[in-house]
Amino acid sequence: MSAKSNSHYDTLVKHFQSISHFEHLSALGDWDQATMMPMGGGEARGAAMAELAKHIHSLKTAPMLAQTINDAKELPLTKQQQANLAEMRYQYLQANVVPGELVEAKTKAAYRCEQAWRQQRRDNDWQGFKPNLENLMLLVKEEATIRAEAQNVSPYDALLDKFEPGMTTANLEQIFGNLKSWLPQLIQQVQDKQKSEPNFTIPNASAESQAKLGREIMNILGFDFNHGRLDISSHPFCGGVASDVRLTTRYDEADFTSGLMGIVHETGHAKYEQGLPKTWRGQPAGVARSMALHESQSLFCEMQIGRGSAFLKLIEPHLTSILSSPLTHSQLTNIYTRVKPELIRVDADEVTYPCHILLRFEAEKSLVTGELAVADLPDFWSTQMLSLLGINTDGDYRNGCMQDIHWAVGELGYFPSYTLGAMYAAQFRSAMETELGCVESQIDSGNLSSVMGWLNDNIWSQGSLLSIDELMRQSTGETLNPTHFKKHLETRYLSR
Amino acid sequence: MSAKSNSHYDTLVKHFQSISHFEHLSALGDWDQATMMPMGGGEARGAAMAELAKHIHSLKTAPMLAQTINDAKELPLTKQQQANLAEMRYQYLQANVVPGELVEAKTKAAYRCEQAWRQQRRDNDWQGFKPNLENLMLLVKEEATIRAEAQNVSPYDALLDKFEPGMTTANLEQIFGNLKSWLPQLIQQVQDKQKSEPNFTIPNASAESQAKLGREIMNILGFDFNHGRLDISSHPFCGGVASDVRLTTRYDEADFTSGLMGIVHETGHAKYEQGLPKTWRGQPAGVARSMALHESQSLFCEMQIGRGSAFLKLIEPHLTSILSSPLTHSQLTNIYTRVKPELIRVDADEVTYPCHILLRFEAEKSLVTGELAVADLPDFWSTQMLSLLGINTDGDYRNGCMQDIHWAVGELGYFPSYTLGAMYAAQFRSAMETELGCVESQIDSGNLSSVMGWLNDNIWSQGSLLSIDELMRQSTGETLNPTHFKKHLETRYLSR
Repeated sequence: MSAKSNSHYDTLVKHFQSISHFEHLSALGDWDQATMMPMGGGEARGAAMAELAKHIHSLKTAPMLAQTINDAKELPLTKQQQANLAEMRYQYLQANVVPGELVEAKTKAAYRCEQAWRQQRRDNDWQGFKPNLENLMLLVKEEATIRAEAQNVSPYDALLDKFEPGMTTANLEQIFGNLKSWLPQLIQQVQDKQKSEPNFTIPNASAESQAKLGREIMNILGFDFNHGRLDISSHPFCGGVASDVRLTTRYDEADFTSGLMGIVHETGHAKYEQGLPKTWRGQPAGVARSMALHESQSLFCEMQIGRGSAFLKLIEPHLTSILSSPLTHSQLTNIYTRVKPELIRVDADEVTYPCHILLRFEAEKSLVTGELAVADLPDFWSTQMLSLLGINTDGDYRNGCMQDIHWAVGELGYFPSYTLGAMYAAQFRSAMETELGCVESQIDSGNLSSVMGWLNDNIWSQGSLLSIDELMRQSTGETLNPTHFKKHLETRYLSR
Repeated sequence: MSAKSNSHYDTLVKHFQSISHFEHLSALGDWDQATMMPMGGGEARGAAMAELAKHIHSLKTAPMLAQTINDAKELPLTKQQQANLAEMRYQYLQANVVPGELVEAKTKAAYRCEQAWRQQRRDNDWQGFKPNLENLMLLVKEEATIRAEAQNVSPYDALLDKFEPGMTTANLEQIFGNLKSWLPQLIQQVQDKQKSEPNFTIPNASAESQAKLGREIMNILGFDFNHGRLDISSHPFCGGVASDVRLTTRYDEADFTSGLMGIVHETGHAKYEQGLPKTWRGQPAGVARSMALHESQSLFCEMQIGRGSAFLKLIEPHLTSILSSPLTHSQLTNIYTRVKPELIRVDADEVTYPCHILLRFEAEKSLVTGELAVADLPDFWSTQMLSLLGINTDGDYRNGCMQDIHWAVGELGYFPSYTLGAMYAAQFRSAMETELGCVESQIDSGNLSSVMGWLNDNIWSQGSLLSIDELMRQSTGETLNPTHFKKHLETRYLSR
C-alpha cells in the first residue's frame, strides 16, 4: 500500500497533536493558578480555562473522529501506530460520553471551589466549603452516571476508569480487603518495635535553604532543569508538560522533613514525564500509562529510593549544611522510617498511608452512590480515622476532610491510584533486583544511573504503547501482585 | 423592538468574549515564557502558542462575522454598543486580511527568533541573530504587503495602523520632522546647563531590596496586588490581562536607577489595564484605546510624575533605606533629570529618548520598503546614532540594533507609539493642571488620588468606547498637539 493510503491515520496524528497543544496551555494555566496567580485573577482565569476545556472537549469529540478512527483501523499500521490508534479511540470514547456543557459547568465549579478552598482550608471553614463541594459533587455524580450508562458499569467504576483503565470497584475491594486483613496488625508490630527509638527535636531550616537543597537533590535524581523548574504551592504537585515539567512543594521552617520528601516524590513523577518517548510527544501513545503507574514512579523515588538508608546517607552532607543543628545518619533514618498514625495523608509514613486511602476509597464510593451525603462527610471521616488509625478528628476539618485538593477540584476515583502505585513500585523494585542486584548497594555507591536506566527502559520510554498488564508482564514477568508490597514493608520495618 | 431582535449583537458579544478567553491564555503563555519558562521548554511552547494564535485568528475570521456584523448595524444599539460593534468590525477586518498560515508561520518564526535572541544578545552575536531576523522580516513584509493592498495604503502605514489606528507615515514625518527641528538644539542647551552639576557615585542596592522597594512604590501608585504581580525578565514589560496584570523589570545591583524607574513606567501601563471599564471586560470596546495611549500612561507615571521633584521626595525615605550609602534629594533629582546621550533606549532620559525613536522609525520604514537590508542594519544604526546623539556603536550589537525585543518578535510599527505617548502624556498633564491645579503640589501633599482619578475618569474607564481624537478632545479640548511636549521639556530642563 502506498504512503497516501495512511492519510486517515495521518489526519488523526495531526488532530491529536493539535489537542496536545491546547492541553499544554491548560497545564500552564493550572500551574500558574496554583503557584503565581493572585486571588483576584481567579474569576477571569476560571472563565478562560472553562472555555479552553470546552474547546479541547470539542476537538476530542470532533464528528469526523468516529469514522476516521474506524477507517484507520483497516490500514497497515505498525504495532506502535496501532497502539497510538487504540489510545486515540479510548480518548475519543472517554470524551464523547460527556456533553460539552457539563464539562464546562464542572470546570467552572471546580475552579470556584478550589479557589475558595485555598483560604477556607486555612480557616478550618467547613461551612464555607460545604456548599461549593455539594454543588461540585452534583456535577461529578452527573458525569459518573452518564459515563456509567455508556460503559455499562457502575458510576464509581466509570470514574476509576478515567485514571486506571480497566480497574473496577470489585478488584479494588479485593486488593484493599486483603490489605485490611494484615495492615493494622503490621502497624501495631512496627509501632511496638519502634517504641524504644529515642526521641529528638527536628532542627530548623530556612525555606530558602530548603529550596536550594531541594534543587541539589533533584540534580542527584537526574531532574533536567533545562526542561522544568521547582516552585511553591499550597499542595505539592507535578504539573506542566513533558518538555517543561513544573514541580511544586511547600516549606515548613520548623520541619524540613515533609517539604524535602515532597520534592523527592514529585521528582519521581517528573522523571516519568521527562523520560516519556520523544518520538511520540503530542500523541496519545506518548503520555504516561496510568495514574497508578505515575504514582508508582513518585513512590519509587520516595519510598523505594528516598527513605532507604543508602539514599539518606547520600544526601546527609547536603542536608546537614542547612540545618540549625546536625542530625546523625541514624536519626535521619529514624525520621524517614518512623511509623505513626497521623492526620495528614501527604505527611503519612508508607505503612499507615494505605489507611488514608482505604478511608477515601470508601468515602468516594459512597458519595457517588449517594449513600454518603457531603454534609455527613466530617462524621464519616472521624469514625473511619478512629477505627483505622485511632485518631479523633472531630471539628478539625482542615486536617480532616478538607486536607486534599482532589475533591475540591472534583476529582473522584483518583485516590486508589496512590496505593496501587505503592504496590507497583514494590513490584518494580523486586524485578529490578532480580536483574541488577541489590538496589541499596547501587545507591550506596552514589550512582543512580542503572536504577534510573531500568525505569527509563521498562516504564518511562514505553509511554502508553503497551497496556498496563502488558507493561507489567514485560517489565516484571507478572501482572499486579500486591505481595511484593507486603514483603517490602516487612523487610524494611520488621527485619532491621 | 423586542430584546430578541438584538440577537445578532448578542451573538457577536458571546463570540468576542470567547476570543478574549483565548487571548487570556496567550497573554499567560507570553508572560511565562519571558519570566518562568526554562530554555528547553521553548520548542513545545512555541508550537502550542502558534496553534493558539491560529485558533484565535480563525475565531476572528469566522465566516459568520461579516454578515452578523452587517446585520447588527441595523439594530437599535446604544452609543456604547455601537462603539463596541465598530471595534469588532475593526478587529475582524484587521484579522481577516492575513491568511491563517501566515499568522502561524510568523508566530513560529517570532518565537524561534526571540528565544535565540535572549542568549544571542548577551553574547553580542549579530551573526547568529541576523538569519533569524531576516527570516522573520520576510514574513513581516509579506504581512505588511497584504495589509497594505487591502487597506489601499503603504505597507508601513498598514503596520502603523495595527498599533495606532489612523496614524500614517506622512503624519509621523510631519510630527517627527518638527521634533528634529528643535530637539538637537534643546539637548545641547540642557547639556550645557547641566555641565556644572556635581558628579557622584550611585550607591549599591541588592536585587532583593530593589524588588521590595518596587512593590512599595507600586503601592504608592495604587497598583492592585490582588489583580497583578511583579517579576523579573530580561526586558521589562507589562503583560497578563486586566484582572491579573503581570509587570516585570530587571535589577542591576550596581545601579538601581533603571530598574526602579522601569517599575514606575510599567506601573503606568498596569494602572491603565486595571482601570479599564469592568462592564466591558472581554469586549473589544473594553480594551486600551491604542498603543500610543498605553505608552502615554506609562510615560505619565514615569515622566510627568516619577521624575518630578515632588515624587522623588515622596519615595526618598523608602529608597534611602535600601542603599549602601544615602542620596540627597538634590542628587536624586539630578539622577532622574540628567540628560546624556546613551546607547540604550529604555535607559534614555526623556529629552534624548525621541532620538532613539527617530532612528527606529527611519529603520523600520526602510526595512519594510526594502531600501534597507537586515544585513545593513548595524551600519545604519551606527551612522544614525552618530548623527543624532554623537555616539559610535560600531560592533556593539547588543547595545545597538539587538537591544530591543520588538523586532525580535516581528513587531514593526510600534516604536513611534513611545514618542506619541510622551506627547499625549504632556498634553494630559496640561489639561489636568487646568482642571486640578499644579500636579507637583498634589503629589507633594502625598496624595496621588486626584491625579489618578483624572486619568481614570478621562482615559482608563473609557476603554475603546471613543476614537482617539474623540478621547483627546473630550479630555483635553483638542486633538494631538505636540507643543505641550516641547513646553514640558523646556519647563523641566531649562527653567529650573
